[in-house]
Amino acid sequence: MVPVTDSKTFTPSTALPPFRSSALLTDKYELTMLQAALQDGTAHRDTAFEVFARRLPNERRYGVVAGTARVLRAIKDFVFTDEQLATLDFLDETTLEYLRNYRFSGQVDGYREGELYFPHSPIVTVRGSFAECVILETVVLSILNADSAVASAAARMVTAAGDRPIIEMGSRRTHEYAAVSATRAAYLAGFTSTSNLEAAKRYGIPAAGTAAHSWTLLHVHEDGSPNEEAAFRAQVDTLGVDTTLLVDTYDITRGVDTAIAVAGKELGGVRIDSGDLGVLAHQVRDQLDSLGAYNTRIVVSSDLDEFAIAGLAGSPVDAFGVGTSVVTGSGAPTAGMVYKLVEADGIPVAKRSRNKKSRGGAKKALRACRSTGTAVEEIVYPFRRDTPDTGTLTPYQLTVPLIRDGEIVDGLPTLDQSRDYLKGQLVTLPWEGLALSKDEPVIHTRFVGFDQ
Amino acid sequence: MVPVTDSKTFTPSTALPPFRSSALLTDKYELTMLQAALQDGTAHRDTAFEVFARRLPNERRYGVVAGTARVLRAIKDFVFTDEQLATLDFLDETTLEYLRNYRFSGQVDGYREGELYFPHSPIVTVRGSFAECVILETVVLSILNADSAVASAAARMVTAAGDRPIIEMGSRRTHEYAAVSATRAAYLAGFTSTSNLEAAKRYGIPAAGTAAHSWTLLHVHEDGSPNEEAAFRAQVDTLGVDTTLLVDTYDITRGVDTAIAVAGKELGGVRIDSGDLGVLAHQVRDQLDSLGAYNTRIVVSSDLDEFAIAGLAGSPVDAFGVGTSVVTGSGAPTAGMVYKLVEADGIPVAKRSRNKKSRGGAKKALRACRSTGTAVEEIVYPFRRDTPDTGTLTPYQLTVPLIRDGEIVDGLPTLDQSRDYLKGQLVTLPWEGLALSKDEPVIHTRFVGFDQ
Repeated sequence: MVPVTDSKTFTPSTALPPFRSSALLTDKYELTMLQAALQDGTAHRDTAFEVFARRLPNERRYGVVAGTARVLRAIKDFVFTDEQLATLDFLDETTLEYLRNYRFSGQVDGYREGELYFPHSPIVTVRGSFAECVILETVVLSILNADSAVASAAARMVTAAGDRPIIEMGSRRTHEYAAVSATRAAYLAGFTSTSNLEAAKRYGIPAAGTAAHSWTLLHVHEDGSPNEEAAFRAQVDTLGVDTTLLVDTYDITRGVDTAIAVAGKELGGVRIDSGDLGVLAHQVRDQLDSLGAYNTRIVVSSDLDEFAIAGLAGSPVDAFGVGTSVVTGSGAPTAGMVYKLVEADGIPVAKRSRNKKSRGGAKKALRACRSTGTAVEEIVYPFRRDTPDTGTLTPYQLTVPLIRDGEIVDGLPTLDQSRDYLKGQLVTLPWEGLALSKDEPVIHTRFVGFDQ
Repeated sequence: MVPVTDSKTFTPSTALPPFRSSALLTDKYELTMLQAALQDGTAHRDTAFEVFARRLPNERRYGVVAGTARVLRAIKDFVFTDEQLATLDFLDETTLEYLRNYRFSGQVDGYREGELYFPHSPIVTVRGSFAECVILETVVLSILNADSAVASAAARMVTAAGDRPIIEMGSRRTHEYAAVSATRAAYLAGFTSTSNLEAAKRYGIPAAGTAAHSWTLLHVHEDGSPNEEAAFRAQVDTLGVDTTLLVDTYDITRGVDTAIAVAGKELGGVRIDSGDLGVLAHQVRDQLDSLGAYNTRIVVSSDLDEFAIAGLAGSPVDAFGVGTSVVTGSGAPTAGMVYKLVEADGIPVAKRSRNKKSRGGAKKALRACRSTGTAVEEIVYPFRRDTPDTGTLTPYQLTVPLIRDGEIVDGLPTLDQSRDYLKGQLVTLPWEGLALSKDEPVIHTRFVGFDQ
């Protein structure tokens, strides 16, 4: 048996933010099922629930697991306050008492944050009593579906951008707290910075920004006519010449002239937020060079997505600002993951409805890789079985412990480590997997050791 | 001059939940612009910023304003804590001091929550100093864009469902807190209940639910074979015969037989969550009737959107459960609204970039209606001008005061009142406006009294 490749080295996770109960981020039916289970004696059956996706959205070739650290935190914070319990007047006293004392005490295993996933990858497995596992469904899925949707889209943008940095600036186009998590997921996927200050504070992500059109519009001469020069001068005065000036409020060519006249050849950057960005980038680069501003960067924004970024591959763009498309998952705002009971008292169970078949039994997975590191296939096998033989291929274990007896395991990766991890994993994909075109998942998932 | 129709009667809004600072739900550039403005003396210029949408997504025919009450609350909660200020190390002391004392003291006017909107409707106008207005951009837009996207999609689903109730059950498919607001927006648009317990607690929305497949799968005979009967019996025992049993875990026909055998003819409902719902609804209705369960309702779910709901118009479905499509705005996860400076010291300003032209000046709007109540057009006019003459049509004022001198005006509508309001407003649309097909906005917006 070839030994399973060791996990990468993990350092301790950062300190937890203050407690905030996640217990009501829950669907009512979970608590009524709990009540029924406490009443008929099934509540304490040993179960395993699995998070997986039946497909990748929009025929993408891979997905990115994101939100894992937030899920673990939400499970720790799944504690009912008295105020919350008082609102659950549809439950009987036995159930309320159960919830009053609820602390998850089971096991969670799953893919690392930043790991690639494919249809039917067993992304997270939650094991414990039916009672303690069933009520986690909604909050676990909410987090993984939202964060993975953003990270999966963001990773494709990062690939399209190549070495050029991407600033996340989509907070205004999504729910005010979804924005904070979206920023985190985009950073995980390789975005370099964010406009969002709460995300900067909470997750230590570098904050960035330029200026809005309102800033330029605010500045007028005494007769009311536009005074772009005054706007640029004030910005440079307060933020220094390394700032990025927004040059497209009126006429771009004049805007660039004014920018360099005000800031000099050492101006950090100019931003273009409208028009045909490919054409304009060339024009502005030529203009900047003719003015001697060889090092002034060109930042472009304006409804960019992975395809628009790819379309600018040959343009002299130095950085991208991406908003709407990344926070909305670029056409796939949810990852569509589900949370299914796969095992009860050690016996595999599975729904048999048409079109929604699933495979019973708790699972682990490994990726079989060539000696070059390129992944060949994903192998899913029963949780308690030995690692299957992968022949001449090297098995890389995908399933790692995340919670043991209710406690988050020590040494889980930091956000920056997960970011590096994803970068490394993307290199293991066959090269065609990084293409933006629609196709099948680039890695096939094979089930080994199941009777079904 | 025809008098502007009075606003509907408003009762006091509900008590505010505890303070939670919204001040870092902000893009960095807003604070650096603030610093530059404090330095160059433009910070205290009188300004007006306007929220509007350039288009309706997916060629829809109308949009629904949602999130207004949440926006007003976020403006009140836009107060920087010392802990937050400590993270803003890129700002100078003057700017930090300004933020330390920041309380919005200006005016907000806008469309009522639940109002219909169209491209270029002046949905919200924020007036005050540049400094106090510019830093609200992100949080105002985040809330309006997220909530209006959901409400705009949900309203179409409600129309498609006709008199049949829709349960919102999409929490698991969106960010855990976006889910709570999405529920609120869906309820505003006419959904009848939600699975989300936090939304039930926070907004008083009726909570509903059935059971998951895991509940049925959990129940097995001693030999490990499925025991659907035990699952149904336990659910009925604890929740009563008015509960809804999920009948499609194994074989639907057998599931329905078992459901009625266990619960009797008075069973509240059965849920079907897979397969061809139109065909199955007919089959199950016939079966229920043949069993004498004439009053047992049929609830369907499984990736329903407005089109699927419309397709079930002729099917014996009694209620719909809608998840993914409503919380993700059914293909339009953001409303795409922007927040633009339109006036500085009383002078209209507007960006002149290609493809992103906007019209300067603070604005109000009214809808001109026939005596039957049908809306004919929307008229946008300068904020300080008298209401324009609408001839034989009755003007209905769309712009109402929301904040005066920093304080939320008394008597704004409750969520239930806004819900009723929207219902009434939808009736004012020309009938073709309620069709699901793609077309132009059903109401044209005309600008009156502008020089540009």
